[in-house]
Amino acid sequence: MPDTMRAVVKQTAAPGAEMARVAVPKVRPEQVLVKVLATSICGTDLHIYQWDPWAASRVKPPLIFGHEFAGEVVELGEGTSHLKVGDHISAETHIVCGVCHQCRSGQRHICQDVSIIGVDQPGCFAEYATVPESNAWLNPADMPADVASVQEPFGNAVHTALSTELVAKSVLVTGCGPIGLMAVGIAKAAGATLVIGTEVVPYRLELARTLGADLVINPLETDVVTEITACTNGTGVDVLLEMSGNPSAIAEGFSVLRCGGYAALLGIPSRPIELDLANDVVFKGATVYGVTGRRVWETWYQTRALLDSGAVDVGPIITHRLPLEEFEKGIELMRTGQCGKVVLLP
Amino acid sequence: MPDTMRAVVKQTAAPGAEMARVAVPKVRPEQVLVKVLATSICGTDLHIYQWDPWAASRVKPPLIFGHEFAGEVVELGEGTSHLKVGDHISAETHIVCGVCHQCRSGQRHICQDVSIIGVDQPGCFAEYATVPESNAWLNPADMPADVASVQEPFGNAVHTALSTELVAKSVLVTGCGPIGLMAVGIAKAAGATLVIGTEVVPYRLELARTLGADLVINPLETDVVTEITACTNGTGVDVLLEMSGNPSAIAEGFSVLRCGGYAALLGIPSRPIELDLANDVVFKGATVYGVTGRRVWETWYQTRALLDSGAVDVGPIITHRLPLEEFEKGIELMRTGQCGKVVLLP
Amino acid sequence: MPDTMRAVVKQTAAPGAEMARVAVPKVRPEQVLVKVLATSICGTDLHIYQWDPWAASRVKPPLIFGHEFAGEVVELGEGTSHLKVGDHISAETHIVCGVCHQCRSGQRHICQDVSIIGVDQPGCFAEYATVPESNAWLNPADMPADVASVQEPFGNAVHTALSTELVAKSVLVTGCGPIGLMAVGIAKAAGATLVIGTEVVPYRLELARTLGADLVINPLETDVVTEITACTNGTGVDVLLEMSGNPSAIAEGFSVLRCGGYAALLGIPSRPIELDLANDVVFKGATVYGVTGRRVWETWYQTRALLDSGAVDVGPIITHRLPLEEFEKGIELMRTGQCGKVVLLP
Amino acid sequence: MPDTMRAVVKQTAAPGAEMARVAVPKVRPEQVLVKVLATSICGTDLHIYQWDPWAASRVKPPLIFGHEFAGEVVELGEGTSHLKVGDHISAETHIVCGVCHQCRSGQRHICQDVSIIGVDQPGCFAEYATVPESNAWLNPADMPADVASVQEPFGNAVHTALSTELVAKSVLVTGCGPIGLMAVGIAKAAGATLVIGTEVVPYRLELARTLGADLVINPLETDVVTEITACTNGTGVDVLLEMSGNPSAIAEGFSVLRCGGYAALLGIPSRPIELDLANDVVFKGATVYGVTGRRVWETWYQTRALLDSGAVDVGPIITHRLPLEEFEKGIELMRTGQCGKVVLLP
Repeated sequence: MPDTMRAVVKQTAAPGAEMARVAVPKVRPEQVLVKVLATSICGTDLHIYQWDPWAASRVKPPLIFGHEFAGEVVELGEGTSHLKVGDHISAETHIVCGVCHQCRSGQRHICQDVSIIGVDQPGCFAEYATVPESNAWLNPADMPADVASVQEPFGNAVHTALSTELVAKSVLVTGCGPIGLMAVGIAKAAGATLVIGTEVVPYRLELARTLGADLVINPLETDVVTEITACTNGTGVDVLLEMSGNPSAIAEGFSVLRCGGYAALLGIPSRPIELDLANDVVFKGATVYGVTGRRVWETWYQTRALLDSGAVDVGPIITHRLPLEEFEKGIELMRTGQCGKVVLLP
Repeated sequence: MPDTMRAVVKQTAAPGAEMARVAVPKVRPEQVLVKVLATSICGTDLHIYQWDPWAASRVKPPLIFGHEFAGEVVELGEGTSHLKVGDHISAETHIVCGVCHQCRSGQRHICQDVSIIGVDQPGCFAEYATVPESNAWLNPADMPADVASVQEPFGNAVHTALSTELVAKSVLVTGCGPIGLMAVGIAKAAGATLVIGTEVVPYRLELARTLGADLVINPLETDVVTEITACTNGTGVDVLLEMSGNPSAIAEGFSVLRCGGYAALLGIPSRPIELDLANDVVFKGATVYGVTGRRVWETWYQTRALLDSGAVDVGPIITHRLPLEEFEKGIELMRTGQCGKVVLLP
Repeated sequence: MPDTMRAVVKQTAAPGAEMARVAVPKVRPEQVLVKVLATSICGTDLHIYQWDPWAASRVKPPLIFGHEFAGEVVELGEGTSHLKVGDHISAETHIVCGVCHQCRSGQRHICQDVSIIGVDQPGCFAEYATVPESNAWLNPADMPADVASVQEPFGNAVHTALSTELVAKSVLVTGCGPIGLMAVGIAKAAGATLVIGTEVVPYRLELARTLGADLVINPLETDVVTEITACTNGTGVDVLLEMSGNPSAIAEGFSVLRCGGYAALLGIPSRPIELDLANDVVFKGATVYGVTGRRVWETWYQTRALLDSGAVDVGPIITHRLPLEEFEKGIELMRTGQCGKVVLLP
Repeated sequence: MPDTMRAVVKQTAAPGAEMARVAVPKVRPEQVLVKVLATSICGTDLHIYQWDPWAASRVKPPLIFGHEFAGEVVELGEGTSHLKVGDHISAETHIVCGVCHQCRSGQRHICQDVSIIGVDQPGCFAEYATVPESNAWLNPADMPADVASVQEPFGNAVHTALSTELVAKSVLVTGCGPIGLMAVGIAKAAGATLVIGTEVVPYRLELARTLGADLVINPLETDVVTEITACTNGTGVDVLLEMSGNPSAIAEGFSVLRCGGYAALLGIPSRPIELDLANDVVFKGATVYGVTGRRVWETWYQTRALLDSGAVDVGPIITHRLPLEEFEKGIELMRTGQCGKVVLLP
């Protein structure tokens, strides 16, 4: 085991990040030390890199960021019980308190005292990382590291898409970034009989088609409401999966949601938005569910089943594999949207 | 049977209404003619009387308005099958198409081609009224007419309050007008262990206490968020029943809704409102349900069971009983909020 | 319109049936007269033909039996409102009372005063048949008549399979007769990641494989419990869809149901059976749901979506198409199990 | 802290138990040592005392049995984190593995590798006992010890009764032992509008009435099916809570369950029983749920809310308080049914 390692570090409270050589973290009780085989870039990493208001208010530099990964256990902390050296793992990135009302009633994904890997504590854009054993998710030894790394965001898509029944339903996915693309694939696998994706970046619209969307719409070119109303015989869609956080997309999504429909919201608007509650929710008899993180571990079991069985193929979504050193190229790809998921290889 | 009757008629497209003598309606096939024993005033009637923008856009004078009632069947139309003369009935006031997607899948309350008694067709602020037999709800012969009349709005409260499980939960009812008051009583009957009501009219706050609210708050005098946060140990309430349509109440309600909580919205904001979707719904993992009308007939069965068993006593909510002639006094009471439910006796 | 027609008639209270020439039925108010384009044989028809104890206790000869069909509307009864001559329809075969507690609370499939087409009133093994307009289900004009005819039993499979969420689940279908085969296809379409079928007739096991079963087991050759325990890593299956009514299959099914699993029972044991409630249900924390008929019309909408979208292809299940005259050959095929669905063409 | 303590010990693999002086247990890492303030007798303790086949197959003497208790923390093991000396606690008695499929998907109550306090490891019929900190449930300091002790069985009743919605429903509780009595009280608190209890011991029938049952029936004197059919207008009950494990009670319960009804089964038949699946479950469209233990910690939160708010008063159920030395008298009371809950005071 070396003493030092390469890592992507947010050094100061300002935009940017740099490749640095830092100490390999010491494993603490009930933790495991992992050699990172692959790590992928999340929108959150982009916020941290760009140092937007949210990042500035939460992140304390210096910090190794990054939270999605696949790795191999190389050292066991004291008190660990079920993992062993050599195991391949990914991790639930929300480290929960375990004792709040939410943690104690099956809602650990909304723990009131959560600490997030790569946000509130050192992350995995590095050669090594530590995680609590209780957050580890065992991977099959033969699961490709890039696929294993994207299980975490895939879990967000699973949590969102499978928060309602989709079989024999029409589904609109607003926003086809990596998680939206995953949701398209999951909706098809779950038996949705009409899956529509909206997205402004043509590169991603094309990916949505590849993932199985029956119809893709670019709102910059086509009127979303007119088009969807027409293709649902005036009824609207049964289900809205909102992945964009974009106010126009949210408004359009609710507008075409059928009376009695269901909307799951994962996208995060950057500020309060105007909503026509009377017409979009009350008179519509709609149900709306806000999605955070992954249900622990229900979502992970579903993720495993969907990926292992081949029901969803995330292959086409992983569009770029870069050496860790080229993380800035990955960040730039994410910024422009000319990518699906970008995986970094330490 | 007389040829003419007294009725409250909206004569022209302008504020106001007048007592008039009009023809007793002829019963048509599959309808029953009812002698109205009691009829009660809804907020909707206030809108029609005041001729607000909604009323102006929907109602076509001349029209007998009013839709909540208890009556006795006095004549059966051709093709009726299960009612008989002398039966005491109330009615589901939404006359549905029966063939739209919603009607055909257990969601008649959001029928896409609904016609509402007293809004889209003649109502029951009159001595006689006709209703489709299929909309009739049989009342026990010994049910007091005023109680029977308020079953319809009670059904709105039931639909809202019982759209989620309340037992062992903390519940906030924002807005203690007649339906909010009913919701307070229903929440207590359903086993909610902490029921809080907010309301700006002291008369109604007092009624909320009578109905069993454990805590009542006047937002004009006390900070709702501070108070509720304190009395829920910082967790917030499990359930929000929004009955006001008031933007401040909605904002406060979502603000104190606990992470993982449930909000049912019956109140109708008069225009689009700003909502902090990210913090109030997404990060909170909240579920929101929009409520329209009553589930037909699930809600009515629940209403019957709650009233018949004495689990909820609407007695204290029926604060005024006036002769039909004094309908304007009733409207005025409703306008000022110095009342619970106002019943008119033809 | 001819005065007489060919029909399969149960003439006397004894085994058998015969082809007869009978009067074309007169259409009554609120009914439509249908020219039968295709009709399919159900297990119930086999019971009526064989005159088993159930049939003897319920059916009153003479009776035209048969209830699954696709037809074209040729005459409208008085008072019909939304169908027109030339429409292609199938029918929900349970004619419900509309006023019992179940009918009035979204559970028409368990109406307490049901009358079934082809059992309690004349059926559709004939050139013409009448059905209440309110039971008609409009088919696309280009839907093949044989596919349209089997929508009704497909609906049984849909009701059973989609009574719980199947996505990312392991599912055992015990009994691969026509409805079991449909359930296999539906489970795959709904995203089940492991679908196992058990069946003693090799012909049908082969069909199960064609429909997409990941594993098929003949209990006469292989120990079901050992095999399924092994292929679920000792956990057991998430979901049991019981289609056989066979006591051994039921026992095996519950035995391999995982703790916390879900069982939907459509198969009808011919007599009370012994069940290890303590171990199979109580300690297991299992949920069991009894399935009758189809949810009206939720199931039909799901059926339509699954068939129209191509998510399930019933083509391979329709193994035989015979002229109506050869109904006895169809009955014999059903008796031996050497078939999927048998369609009769009048 | 003394070195030795008094405890009820099952010394040999035979009926009976004896009061003995044994060593005070040493607290291990992540455990707490508790001074027992009250402990109550469960049916399971009766089985162990009587050494029935189940007990003989599972329990390894010598063993201190007993699992329901209220106590005060007197010593903290290494690695404990949130409790402190002086805290009043009770405990979830199922010590789960935390890593099986069930534990990891919100179903810890059916953990596949559970160890039960007082069954698989030393219990609390003693002056002191140890429990894992993670199984501890903090009690308010002013909660009476006898009430605190019976929270565990109360949780069984909560899990059973609140596994479905009871508000505005009719509910049959078959078997009014301590947990059945609790279920009666919970059902009333949850808004059930008709609660019926059946029980053969008059002492307990009387208690059922005290707890709020609207109707109590002794099956030895009255025909349960006739009586319940009559008082539900022929419809049957909406919900069955089966607490007896008695084959006749189970048969009667299913017989009067309405079509579309719900049955929760907590009682444990001592052997496989005959069930008319076709008529009692399939044709009925019934839902059946098997109940084991308590949902951790959802059930405990509900328990706390119901007891703290006064919604349910277990006072009348705690009929006997005996010194620990008189445990055999308590066992005898339980055997004869001439009691509610028996609490032992060390």
